[in-house]
Amino acid sequence: MKPKMTIPEIHDFLDKEFPQMKGAFEVLELEPRRLKLRMKITEENLRPGGTVSGPAMFTAADCAYYIATLAMIGPEALAVTTGCSINFMRKPEPTDLIAEARVMKLGKVLSVGDVMLYSEGMDEPVAHAHLTYSIPKPR
Amino acid sequence: MKPKMTIPEIHDFLDKEFPQMKGAFEVLELEPRRLKLRMKITEENLRPGGTVSGPAMFTAADCAYYIATLAMIGPEALAVTTGCSINFMRKPEPTDLIAEARVMKLGKVLSVGDVMLYSEGMDEPVAHAHLTYSIPKPR
Amino acid sequence: MKPKMTIPEIHDFLDKEFPQMKGAFEVLELEPRRLKLRMKITEENLRPGGTVSGPAMFTAADCAYYIATLAMIGPEALAVTTGCSINFMRKPEPTDLIAEARVMKLGKVLSVGDVMLYSEGMDEPVAHAHLTYSIPKPR
Amino acid sequence: MKPKMTIPEIHDFLDKEFPQMKGAFEVLELEPRRLKLRMKITEENLRPGGTVSGPAMFTAADCAYYIATLAMIGPEALAVTTGCSINFMRKPEPTDLIAEARVMKLGKVLSVGDVMLYSEGMDEPVAHAHLTYSIPKPR
Repeated sequence: MKPKMTIPEIHDFLDKEFPQMKGAFEVLELEPRRLKLRMKITEENLRPGGTVSGPAMFTAADCAYYIATLAMIGPEALAVTTGCSINFMRKPEPTDLIAEARVMKLGKVLSVGDVMLYSEGMDEPVAHAHLTYSIPKPR
Repeated sequence: MKPKMTIPEIHDFLDKEFPQMKGAFEVLELEPRRLKLRMKITEENLRPGGTVSGPAMFTAADCAYYIATLAMIGPEALAVTTGCSINFMRKPEPTDLIAEARVMKLGKVLSVGDVMLYSEGMDEPVAHAHLTYSIPKPR
Repeated sequence: MKPKMTIPEIHDFLDKEFPQMKGAFEVLELEPRRLKLRMKITEENLRPGGTVSGPAMFTAADCAYYIATLAMIGPEALAVTTGCSINFMRKPEPTDLIAEARVMKLGKVLSVGDVMLYSEGMDEPVAHAHLTYSIPKPR
Repeated sequence: MKPKMTIPEIHDFLDKEFPQMKGAFEVLELEPRRLKLRMKITEENLRPGGTVSGPAMFTAADCAYYIATLAMIGPEALAVTTGCSINFMRKPEPTDLIAEARVMKLGKVLSVGDVMLYSEGMDEPVAHAHLTYSIPKPR
């Protein structure tokens, strides 16, 4: 399962397709089945007490898995989340999130895998999600 | 499992504790084990194509279950999401979301239940989540 | 979503296709989107302390949702579980399990819904599962 | 998180506490946070078509995570599954199952982690589960 896109190609695709998210995600590493990215945490993702909100962690997991699937199948497809199961394990720090996505199965219809989430600089994960994406038929 | 708060008490609590969310949630119905609310959808929750984002649906499910648990245990407690499994079933309309939360178990340590999500005016649900909240020890 | 099979047709189909399970499941009620059944608990499903094993509860949820999907799409199809998220809420009694399945979405590719599990005679549910089945293309 | 039991201690504990499962599980590897085991597949776990049943895969994931938690907290505790989310990805072979459990968080109240399941001899996983166990208070 070699990636069909390079990191710069992914960044260009995201800027073009999701201009409203510009700068939110930076792909750090890409290899067969795996992708690592940083999600920038902004003021609106923080909660009182200096922690990152649950929806922001969900967004990081969901987008990381979307981008990982995209990297493996190429830029034409439009995958849609069908299910996500997420466990929150530790209180995140008010820093950027690092997401490590792993594609376990890339079938004709479904992409299945998981994402481990870290607060940048922490050793222990803050959350773990497993996700299923539906892959549309090629046009 | 009779609610320990009234709808106006819940609204007051939310305004005080989460001022940044003011006006986002309106509790519509409250009965033993069950709570129904509307989450206001704003420009930033929409996606191109006129649909509501996945993170916005996650937020609706998570907050609805939080508020339902709060209503049943009273305003002192600070519950924290430990896990959420959500299935996305239909494309939502660009309208407010209606969430129906059901508390299945309220133990000393965990609150477990589910949330059905609708686009306001649609008959069929757009998503279904089941959630687990950890309940802190009383102070 | 009217059922395409009657209760006796379902029982005949199960006896023929799964002879090794003969007598394990009895469909009690069937209506649009919903099916209720009893799973017989035998010695091998029990655990010391007089409770029903986790795998037996998983089996009840999985089979109830399979049979509910079958009832709605008709006897030709061969659906396969792709995902199950189950929360265990209370210790079951050493009695038969009652499963109430609800089909939330029946698409061309996926059937999505949930199952509430009870120990026969108990008011409160022992477990709740939500499940996704993949529906094969018609032959 | 160093294991508090050795592999022979685990086998002795299982034989004593779960005599009805004798010989079903063999721990192959044990290191901090991780445990790998084999679950013996018997005639009753097979399905027509030469595949392993869903409940048997659930059992493998559930028991592997139970044993991994036990190894990390020691033999006195009695942990109970509170939730499991499992994705089935590939048709298993009619051979023993290999389960790789990873403990992501071991708190005072909850143990959270995942299990990857393989058919012995296959490279690609057949299923992936993430699990939450409740840890009872020490006696």
